Amino acid sequence: MNFGVIGYGYWGPNVVRNLVSLEGSKVLAIADVTQTARVRAQKAYPGIKVISDASEVIASTDVDAVAIVSPVWTHYKLTKAALENGKHVFVEKPFTSNTEQGEELINLAQQKNLKIMVDHTFLFTGAVKRISQLIKEGTLGKLYYYDSTRVNLGLFQHDINVLWDLAPHDLSIMDYLIEGSPEAVVATGQSHLNGHEDVAFMTLYFPEKVIAHINVNWLSPVKVRTTLIGGEKRMLVWNDLEADEKVKVYDKGVKITSREGVYELLVNYRSGDMWSPQLEQGEALRQELSCFVDCVSHNQEPFNDGCAGLRVVKMLESASKSLSKGGSLVYL
Amino acid sequence: MNFGVIGYGYWGPNVVRNLVSLEGSKVLAIADVTQTARVRAQKAYPGIKVISDASEVIASTDVDAVAIVSPVWTHYKLTKAALENGKHVFVEKPFTSNTEQGEELINLAQQKNLKIMVDHTFLFTGAVKRISQLIKEGTLGKLYYYDSTRVNLGLFQHDINVLWDLAPHDLSIMDYLIEGSPEAVVATGQSHLNGHEDVAFMTLYFPEKVIAHINVNWLSPVKVRTTLIGGEKRMLVWNDLEADEKVKVYDKGVKITSREGVYELLVNYRSGDMWSPQLEQGEALRQELSCFVDCVSHNQEPFNDGCAGLRVVKMLESASKSLSKGGSLVYL
Amino acid sequence: MNFGVIGYGYWGPNVVRNLVSLEGSKVLAIADVTQTARVRAQKAYPGIKVISDASEVIASTDVDAVAIVSPVWTHYKLTKAALENGKHVFVEKPFTSNTEQGEELINLAQQKNLKIMVDHTFLFTGAVKRISQLIKEGTLGKLYYYDSTRVNLGLFQHDINVLWDLAPHDLSIMDYLIEGSPEAVVATGQSHLNGHEDVAFMTLYFPEKVIAHINVNWLSPVKVRTTLIGGEKRMLVWNDLEADEKVKVYDKGVKITSREGVYELLVNYRSGDMWSPQLEQGEALRQELSCFVDCVSHNQEPFNDGCAGLRVVKMLESASKSLSKGGSLVYL
Amino acid sequence: MNFGVIGYGYWGPNVVRNLVSLEGSKVLAIADVTQTARVRAQKAYPGIKVISDASEVIASTDVDAVAIVSPVWTHYKLTKAALENGKHVFVEKPFTSNTEQGEELINLAQQKNLKIMVDHTFLFTGAVKRISQLIKEGTLGKLYYYDSTRVNLGLFQHDINVLWDLAPHDLSIMDYLIEGSPEAVVATGQSHLNGHEDVAFMTLYFPEKVIAHINVNWLSPVKVRTTLIGGEKRMLVWNDLEADEKVKVYDKGVKITSREGVYELLVNYRSGDMWSPQLEQGEALRQELSCFVDCVSHNQEPFNDGCAGLRVVKMLESASKSLSKGGSLVYL
Repeated sequence: MNFGVIGYGYWGPNVVRNLVSLEGSKVLAIADVTQTARVRAQKAYPGIKVISDASEVIASTDVDAVAIVSPVWTHYKLTKAALENGKHVFVEKPFTSNTEQGEELINLAQQKNLKIMVDHTFLFTGAVKRISQLIKEGTLGKLYYYDSTRVNLGLFQHDINVLWDLAPHDLSIMDYLIEGSPEAVVATGQSHLNGHEDVAFMTLYFPEKVIAHINVNWLSPVKVRTTLIGGEKRMLVWNDLEADEKVKVYDKGVKITSREGVYELLVNYRSGDMWSPQLEQGEALRQELSCFVDCVSHNQEPFNDGCAGLRVVKMLESASKSLSKGGSLVYL
Repeated sequence: MNFGVIGYGYWGPNVVRNLVSLEGSKVLAIADVTQTARVRAQKAYPGIKVISDASEVIASTDVDAVAIVSPVWTHYKLTKAALENGKHVFVEKPFTSNTEQGEELINLAQQKNLKIMVDHTFLFTGAVKRISQLIKEGTLGKLYYYDSTRVNLGLFQHDINVLWDLAPHDLSIMDYLIEGSPEAVVATGQSHLNGHEDVAFMTLYFPEKVIAHINVNWLSPVKVRTTLIGGEKRMLVWNDLEADEKVKVYDKGVKITSREGVYELLVNYRSGDMWSPQLEQGEALRQELSCFVDCVSHNQEPFNDGCAGLRVVKMLESASKSLSKGGSLVYL
Repeated sequence: MNFGVIGYGYWGPNVVRNLVSLEGSKVLAIADVTQTARVRAQKAYPGIKVISDASEVIASTDVDAVAIVSPVWTHYKLTKAALENGKHVFVEKPFTSNTEQGEELINLAQQKNLKIMVDHTFLFTGAVKRISQLIKEGTLGKLYYYDSTRVNLGLFQHDINVLWDLAPHDLSIMDYLIEGSPEAVVATGQSHLNGHEDVAFMTLYFPEKVIAHINVNWLSPVKVRTTLIGGEKRMLVWNDLEADEKVKVYDKGVKITSREGVYELLVNYRSGDMWSPQLEQGEALRQELSCFVDCVSHNQEPFNDGCAGLRVVKMLESASKSLSKGGSLVYL
Repeated sequence: MNFGVIGYGYWGPNVVRNLVSLEGSKVLAIADVTQTARVRAQKAYPGIKVISDASEVIASTDVDAVAIVSPVWTHYKLTKAALENGKHVFVEKPFTSNTEQGEELINLAQQKNLKIMVDHTFLFTGAVKRISQLIKEGTLGKLYYYDSTRVNLGLFQHDINVLWDLAPHDLSIMDYLIEGSPEAVVATGQSHLNGHEDVAFMTLYFPEKVIAHINVNWLSPVKVRTTLIGGEKRMLVWNDLEADEKVKVYDKGVKITSREGVYELLVNYRSGDMWSPQLEQGEALRQELSCFVDCVSHNQEPFNDGCAGLRVVKMLESASKSLSKGGSLVYL
């Protein structure tokens, strides 16, 4: 399967490195509008054609699939052109800038019988796979909440705010882990520097009283990647920055007890062992790209397809609407 | 100065222990409606009168001041009675259940020339004192945000939700640290067990683009007490669970740079040393009670007086209003 | 059971507090040669007789047992006097300053049918109890090593070096956990300040290739209390400074595999889940003193008796011999 | 400068990657006796000659310098051959298997005016550079001790024990940081699996009462890379596994005070701020190889030359002697 890659900035080199070494895939061309990116690409891969014009890659008859690793605002145009040229598409998250674009691209792909995979890399990590298994097996019991903190200093993007930059990770993970779709969203935040929010908070209401919260921040002195997931039977902490023991499952819970007296507590808590399951190793992006190659080869729909990408875009769109009002309840 | 203490549940014993050992204060009586609490109190302090009826303590002519360490819904009635009986009052946070009650008590105290101190204990910790100093000296520069996470398993209260239980800590700290008053608040949350929210999130908009966020949760498998404070010049992390090095100041910041190309970043970040100042030791509650005794003795108003308590109640009240709508912008 | 307590410095107040509140025990008298200690004791316990002369406590006919919480060099003399006066003895670790003293006291107690308990407090912690159980059940498999680091800044003692001050904790734990007695010891160290070693390292060779190592240091900027225990089947880390999750059991091990080529590794390792068992809560010293009261009442020998104390003293004595030569192999 | 690289196992690929991308260096040939290593090398570097016979690389007239990244027992033979063929040598640590070999190679290089650099990579890390500066500037004051723990599960070597495998890191760092040479060494340890010690402890006595201790272990369930360095004025902790804040300097120290009473302490400690200096970033191996290229180009002796390598070998040799006796004081 021959790939053209569009965009060789921060993430593009990882996509190329994996496509080059994967069985069954080959990179024919890399396009980037920036001169320095092209020089880097050509030095690292003397055998690959490196050009500035993405449309040349898209038009190439040798290319079977296009990996689009460029800024969000280019996704719609590039994906559309790729699909129209009969190429399968692997595209960065977030999928598109709005719902309409996403729906159009999904329809187009269906008509042409082409695959779209949206790069929700985290779904291919050992941590998310294991957490998904724990939830599906009922280890946590009925879910109460999902609470994620994803903050660090920097990596500002000039075209989107921190919500569109960092929250797609959590939204795609939540979409994968939590049954049902969110019913409403509230987002708050503030921009301090360049007109885009650099600090933002998002609450999502799911059916059955499941609540999700996402804290994203480009102005944090420390990097944090921590998610708490609370369930009726057990609760877990996923700290993605831990070298080992990324996921810890706590045999802790709550028991409602009858009321004894005015000054007494109503609810008791229960505490047991903690357990950290060994996680599957291996680079998530490699597994994701391998899955993409497989899906295209066997004409199967990936679970992180255009529809999954669209669900994330819809949440972001509603969050933006809420954020623009300083924080109001927006139904999805 | 002779004290009567009302309430000997979780926090009351700490108040009594400190009042007993402080120079210049003495505990004459302890009142608690619960039999087991009274037995515990009497065993620990054979020399102190332990009774069930708070009004007896309040009416006692020997008592100069009353420490009210009972549930929120009792604060108004007990404080009012104490003031009417000419007693100074040290009262648990949150001060009252609503604004009207708080205003009435403040007026009453003023008329009677009595002191009210609201137990905002954290303001007397070495950490908050040092952070306040860092902000006032300009070490952090202009403030960007205040982001606090205060979660743990349990200690449910049957009469209030998690916001009224845990957020007063952060609200009183913010009120102390951040110049100006919040202009609006948004709160979201969910109740899973007994009708009171057990998970809640609160955003406060301050003037000058300062944004504050509070994450409180009674259903967390791990205890977290972490606050990030970001400023133009420096940023800090306060982790109250660290034995040493509770406060870490990062010489990190952001520089806006001119735009180079479409795919390039607009904002650069700057990174330097980290520094953890040694903090004043000593029990915060002891220092607070000592301050209360001093204020009463010298007829001075404590900075954590009824007005400080009222400001916190107002924020909680507005947050409750927002929360009841699932999260709407409520102006203060 | 009526106690006399000798020594009210750092640890004595904890012994008194527990003896006072335990069912079945009562403190009649406290002796300390230091004026400030006596003032502290009398203020805290107005009902207890506080004196300077230990011999008066020992001679008192009302006293059934004596708790000796004074410096090491006083243990022999005080314990001997107490036994001669027919008192049971609870004595601080290390038991005595040398083997001869220990043996004499054990014999004396036997003749008089009196109990000696040496205060090896750690044996009554939830952590050590659980680790002991894990070893006895075979969870770790055959033991490979025990490696403990116990360092902090300060708490210098003027009469003993850091080995006699800190290592008794580890030696008593090892004596309890590891089957068999050590065959030889090597100790190294250095004194920088007052003639006593403030940094020291100790290796103990047990039968069956079990090796133990203890790192003690009074000059460390950070406090560390970490023990690694390696076994054939599993390995564990005990971090006593963790609030929760003090003991973590790793399903990790080693498999010898046949040699493939000159540059290949001979040994493979195996990695699985980690698991942190919930530990029994409760103050260790309280449980230990309760055990002492029970043993005396029912005429049973405590497992941390004089003989256990003597085994620790013998190891310390041999370590001192090795240390005095800069580190030589000394057989026990 | 044209390089031949011998050995493409664990570390060799890192050496090649850096030599390939460095300005002024080029890799002409890679030799490895293992078929799988050769396949990996050829796939990664299609333009480089990959062979099995190291002597062919050494004999090549196009090659200016040889990087020897093979097991310890091959270092002497390969380095000797390289020098005899007029090649400069970059060789893995430990330099040689014994003192005689090291001395012979140093003499040979001097006669031929060729450079030897021993790969003491850590000396080129930001952490070691900064610590060295702190010590030289007198920030720590007179040194008291150096205490390093370097443990993990696995990476067993079949030809050497854990001391020869892991301790060279610490010995080369100590050799760089501590003024003067160690006077004596004591080593203890145990082998549990294949005849080579897998757990070992080493004490080194330096002049002026500086003591060093190294704890190395191949059977640890957790990876630890922590070094404590204590000085009269300040103390530091270097945790190499921290992403940021690897080095923390504590303004802590000790003051001897006069003796007050029998039960009082003789020594007081002093506590102040903690400070974590920002460290130079960049891959240490890259900087080291760049330094090697520079030294050869400008005919300068690197500070991590054959003599530095020999000093480490001498310490290892003496440690082995001590270890073989179960731990005796061996003078250097």
